[in-house]
Amino acid sequence: MAPLGDGSDAAEEAIAGQLVNRPISTVVIVIAMQTEALPLVEKFQLVEDSESPFPKGVPWVRYYGTYKELNINLIWPGKDPSLGVDSVGTISASLVTYASICALQPDLIINAGTCGGFKAKGASISDVFVASEVAFHDRRIPIPVFDVYGVGLRQTFPTPNLLKEINLKAGKLSTGDSLDMSPQDEASIIANDATVKDMEGAAVAYVADLMKVPAIFVKAVTDIVDGEKPTAEEFLQNLATVTATLCLSVTQIIDFISGKCLSEL
Amino acid sequence: MAPLGDGSDAAEEAIAGQLVNRPISTVVIVIAMQTEALPLVEKFQLVEDSESPFPKGVPWVRYYGTYKELNINLIWPGKDPSLGVDSVGTISASLVTYASICALQPDLIINAGTCGGFKAKGASISDVFVASEVAFHDRRIPIPVFDVYGVGLRQTFPTPNLLKEINLKAGKLSTGDSLDMSPQDEASIIANDATVKDMEGAAVAYVADLMKVPAIFVKAVTDIVDGEKPTAEEFLQNLATVTATLCLSVTQIIDFISGKCLSEL
Repeated sequence: MAPLGDGSDAAEEAIAGQLVNRPISTVVIVIAMQTEALPLVEKFQLVEDSESPFPKGVPWVRYYGTYKELNINLIWPGKDPSLGVDSVGTISASLVTYASICALQPDLIINAGTCGGFKAKGASISDVFVASEVAFHDRRIPIPVFDVYGVGLRQTFPTPNLLKEINLKAGKLSTGDSLDMSPQDEASIIANDATVKDMEGAAVAYVADLMKVPAIFVKAVTDIVDGEKPTAEEFLQNLATVTATLCLSVTQIIDFISGKCLSEL
Repeated sequence: MAPLGDGSDAAEEAIAGQLVNRPISTVVIVIAMQTEALPLVEKFQLVEDSESPFPKGVPWVRYYGTYKELNINLIWPGKDPSLGVDSVGTISASLVTYASICALQPDLIINAGTCGGFKAKGASISDVFVASEVAFHDRRIPIPVFDVYGVGLRQTFPTPNLLKEINLKAGKLSTGDSLDMSPQDEASIIANDATVKDMEGAAVAYVADLMKVPAIFVKAVTDIVDGEKPTAEEFLQNLATVTATLCLSVTQIIDFISGKCLSEL
């Protein structure tokens, strides 16, 4: 990924590292919620790492295994040690992305999860999107250049062949740490031209960019933000079903990736 | 630090680790902006680490040196590689706090920086606060328990003797990734009962808590949020002066800490 306007840095780095010319070997899948993660753990027959590559005491969980020609690592930030809920949001996602890159040196990061969709931009419940761009909608810093830093707009690693093969939708993703949407968030989401909104994507993209690892973003719609139903209610109602759809799409993506070089995505 | 209600976990951990009974040796000071960091680098005659303990390519900078009986590490997340502005906000603060704890195993973390203050709660320009509690004001997740996780309220490491000795103000700190304040932010800041607001504190506290390292928060007021002047303008106007005041307070704190055990703070 790269800030818009200076080309595709991640792709260039990958080429520089000659990664582009050998098959992808190690994949890290970052998933924020256990409900989203477990169908994939089962599908790929992953096992929980008994000797965690992460520091003692952190709740982060690594599931791993070999599937076709890939070393798959599914990283879930785990349950909050005090409260017992999934460690959602940008901070946990950043930390596990960073720690996973340091420990596992993946060729590719896949951030998968559920999201809210905008029907005005063509999103429906259970649609699965691959993000073409990611940005933040809750980091307003009205000082020149800091404003651009706050938005944190990044192009994702380009996957034209994958999109064609699997027939997933492409759309822009906007990230913030709230499940709801304030009027200020909405204005930023419109400025970001986003079709879907989540709570982790742009943070994973920031860290992947910092560490020069290509990353893609697969987001399945659990709730229509510009619809009638309250977001939290609709999200919880659809979570299980949409998670199954997400699992199917990630499996198709992994099947497609296996044996291929980055340049073939 | 600990979520409110279950006592002071960090203090207990420190006691369990017998840290409490030996003088503090290694301190990590996390500072988001170069303008805030440089006066302290000069004051303690710190030098930039030529062999960074951080991964290649990240902009994070470690300044280090010995001052009195302390190994001091000042960690600054550096300039954004693409945009050249300081890497402010919760994500960079989380990452450098995590990476610093892993690399340097500090006995104590000090997050120092500038902040906005509320005159309705008694804050004035150039006041320096030590945070008694920290919480987020821009992570709204209206689902039971997730809502509490989003707010992320934590008590800081208690420093009653330090507060008495140096005569700093105590106040609650609220953190968010925007410099401005939306009506939703304001409602959360009021709910957090905050006297000061910043862009890093609660994130540093989250990571320090996760890694069981005691942390304190020293924040100097550059702008009055509930005053007449626009925040960005007032912030930039006062940044240099207030940074000098912040440097003085951090120096007094470091002088106080040197030779003492955690239990004596």
